[in-house]
Amino acid sequence: MTQPAAVPVGAAVSAVRQASLREHNLALVLRQIAAADRPPSRADLAAATGLTRATVSALVDDLITGRLLTEVAPTPRSGAGRPAVGLTLAGHGPAGLGLEINVDYLAAVLVDLAGTVRHRAVRRVDLRPVSPVESLALVGEMITEAGAEADRQDLTLAGTALAVPGLVTATGLVRLAPNLGWRDVDVPALLGAHPGLGGRGLGVDNEANLAALGELHAAPPGSANFIYISGEVGIGAGIVLHGTLFRGARGWSGEIGHVPVHPEGRPCRCGGRGCLEQYAGQEAILARAGVTDPPALDAGPDALDADPDGSLPAPVPGAAVTRLVAAATRDEPAAERALVEAATALGVAVAGVINLLDVDTVVLGGVYAPLARWLAPTVEAEIRRRVLTAAWSPVTVRPALLGGDAAALGAAGSVVRTVLEHPARWLGRPGR
Amino acid sequence: MTQPAAVPVGAAVSAVRQASLREHNLALVLRQIAAADRPPSRADLAAATGLTRATVSALVDDLITGRLLTEVAPTPRSGAGRPAVGLTLAGHGPAGLGLEINVDYLAAVLVDLAGTVRHRAVRRVDLRPVSPVESLALVGEMITEAGAEADRQDLTLAGTALAVPGLVTATGLVRLAPNLGWRDVDVPALLGAHPGLGGRGLGVDNEANLAALGELHAAPPGSANFIYISGEVGIGAGIVLHGTLFRGARGWSGEIGHVPVHPEGRPCRCGGRGCLEQYAGQEAILARAGVTDPPALDAGPDALDADPDGSLPAPVPGAAVTRLVAAATRDEPAAERALVEAATALGVAVAGVINLLDVDTVVLGGVYAPLARWLAPTVEAEIRRRVLTAAWSPVTVRPALLGGDAAALGAAGSVVRTVLEHPARWLGRPGR
Repeated sequence: MTQPAAVPVGAAVSAVRQASLREHNLALVLRQIAAADRPPSRADLAAATGLTRATVSALVDDLITGRLLTEVAPTPRSGAGRPAVGLTLAGHGPAGLGLEINVDYLAAVLVDLAGTVRHRAVRRVDLRPVSPVESLALVGEMITEAGAEADRQDLTLAGTALAVPGLVTATGLVRLAPNLGWRDVDVPALLGAHPGLGGRGLGVDNEANLAALGELHAAPPGSANFIYISGEVGIGAGIVLHGTLFRGARGWSGEIGHVPVHPEGRPCRCGGRGCLEQYAGQEAILARAGVTDPPALDAGPDALDADPDGSLPAPVPGAAVTRLVAAATRDEPAAERALVEAATALGVAVAGVINLLDVDTVVLGGVYAPLARWLAPTVEAEIRRRVLTAAWSPVTVRPALLGGDAAALGAAGSVVRTVLEHPARWLGRPGR
Repeated sequence: MTQPAAVPVGAAVSAVRQASLREHNLALVLRQIAAADRPPSRADLAAATGLTRATVSALVDDLITGRLLTEVAPTPRSGAGRPAVGLTLAGHGPAGLGLEINVDYLAAVLVDLAGTVRHRAVRRVDLRPVSPVESLALVGEMITEAGAEADRQDLTLAGTALAVPGLVTATGLVRLAPNLGWRDVDVPALLGAHPGLGGRGLGVDNEANLAALGELHAAPPGSANFIYISGEVGIGAGIVLHGTLFRGARGWSGEIGHVPVHPEGRPCRCGGRGCLEQYAGQEAILARAGVTDPPALDAGPDALDADPDGSLPAPVPGAAVTRLVAAATRDEPAAERALVEAATALGVAVAGVINLLDVDTVVLGGVYAPLARWLAPTVEAEIRRRVLTAAWSPVTVRPALLGGDAAALGAAGSVVRTVLEHPARWLGRPGR
């Protein structure tokens, strides 16, 4: 027992055993600071949590030493007395590294405790002809690069998560990623010992799930029920219900790309026929629009330059999608036809989803985000036509808030949230 | 404070406030008795709950007086001393009334606290040409009949729930039941004051949801993730995930009948096209098989006679479905073709569901249950062909455990579980 038994007001006191009291209170203090409108003082924290000032000071000192908090200049006050020093989440402490490997690009982002993107890189490369080992070696290069950036910016890697467009087990084994041609690829075994990971291992998850988590935390409160559709070469979905990612019975939910929309239609890489992917996947849209992908230009990672205000812009879509957007903006008939055909198939699949799951929002992510202006009206029309509750329960169809690296952002965010929820683990980490 | 502060072992003690301690302990004792292999004695209950013998005796006396428990002859013991009196759930106390209104039948069941079906009736009548008010008047007749049976068998109605094949709000308003032709029918306003309900009101819920709940409680433990498909004139689904009914964001999940399987196919009553219902609904199957429905024979409620052992059999399917089963048993080509066509459409929709939700079991309910022998192989083939995880995550397709009145059984069961979970409400009810 290193802490006096001061206890938070309003929490289920007895459920917090004495031994874990300090852990609980560290997280409580961090939560208060993360949610505050302006940097609170130690006294503000004591008032808000019901902990004694002595306890708050001891906890705050530990969090400052552990580089989770920073003191900032006092906010001027109207009342009497010397203004107190404020506390904010540290911008020089732990950071989460989020990575994405997709069919035609790789992405990496480094996010600090306050949620600021500190490094962002994207690399356009067609991975279909590349083996899993070689593909993961490219990911390894991006880890090294991000690690150098973290050092340069005085950040410490708290953890790394990788988004993969496929079915991932709880241990990080990629069972199947049809568009990458991967089957039973043990990512942690191949990449988990990379020196850039700092011995902290590597989490692996489905890219649509991570992008949906990113969207959930980027969206205003109340955005609790939606399906995030990640349109890429493949199409995945992350289903958020009551503010929680729904993973399905065995962790393999959201494979909307393989929902049949024309049961005896075009054959699919998965072995089925008429899957949504064959009508609304990136390749299908580009082919129908007559936009061909230029030869993959792998000029190495493309780290994005910061805007003058210091923020890092989201990466622009690949060249082919950019040309499709341009063609649609010029009202070119082939582009328009291709987008209506894709949106109709997407609308049919989405109408089925809403009839089954009764979500109120459809988020168009991946390449669908820059195309949402053309896709959304047709998707909405199919919903109105086919969803039983549409007449009195309108459904919103909107582009994703995050850009093309939403899955990498979601991955980095998941690492950062783990630190904020379990600060004692970070403070007590080996080798500190 | 009517109870000494004896507290259950292993429960979150402090979370149970003093004022609700008695309620908590009454439910604890009931749960122990419901789960026991053989009728436990008061001493057994004290040992199992950590309550004092005096407390257990006081609680048991209240539960016996309130007709929730009965004493039974002692189980012989090998040890010394006089064998103790055992306790079981009462067969003469509260009972739940479950009702179902569907397109071509009505059903009623009365279930006692121990789960025994004490009365079971079904009435075949085509309600499509009948107004909501007249249809509910027929339900009222079944309530009166069930009430008379309850009196005759010394049971007291604890509550009533009605299953409806449509979209139901939390207040019991039926927003839409396309196959009944209902729109905005306020069932509690029309039927809630029926004298047979004993002033206890009327719960209303979707029939597939209630049938899925019935299936969940009838199935062996571990059957936690399934989609229950209720095949009738319409097709509904109840989705059970991690042992809990999934109702969707707004309570309107499970409308699998309107999942598009042929996007520009047959028009549907809902206004859409190519809905599953148009290919795998009861009417579609019978028409394709050349089995016509005989004119509705409304000879009044058909109460089912008890078997010699006292158990009440589930109702047999309607005449047309019985004739279809006979034709399929004789390998008649038209019947076989109709069933393959329906099962193919069902398999396409179900494959989409599994790709999205990753459930491991498909339960064929309603008229699909007696037809499962012919439907399941084709549904399974479509799943193998179209579900991304099918190769290593087999899906079970099986007929429902409960019969044609599964929704009414689920409705009655929901009333009984409420009494078992909140016995204090039953003991303290007005007019007792």
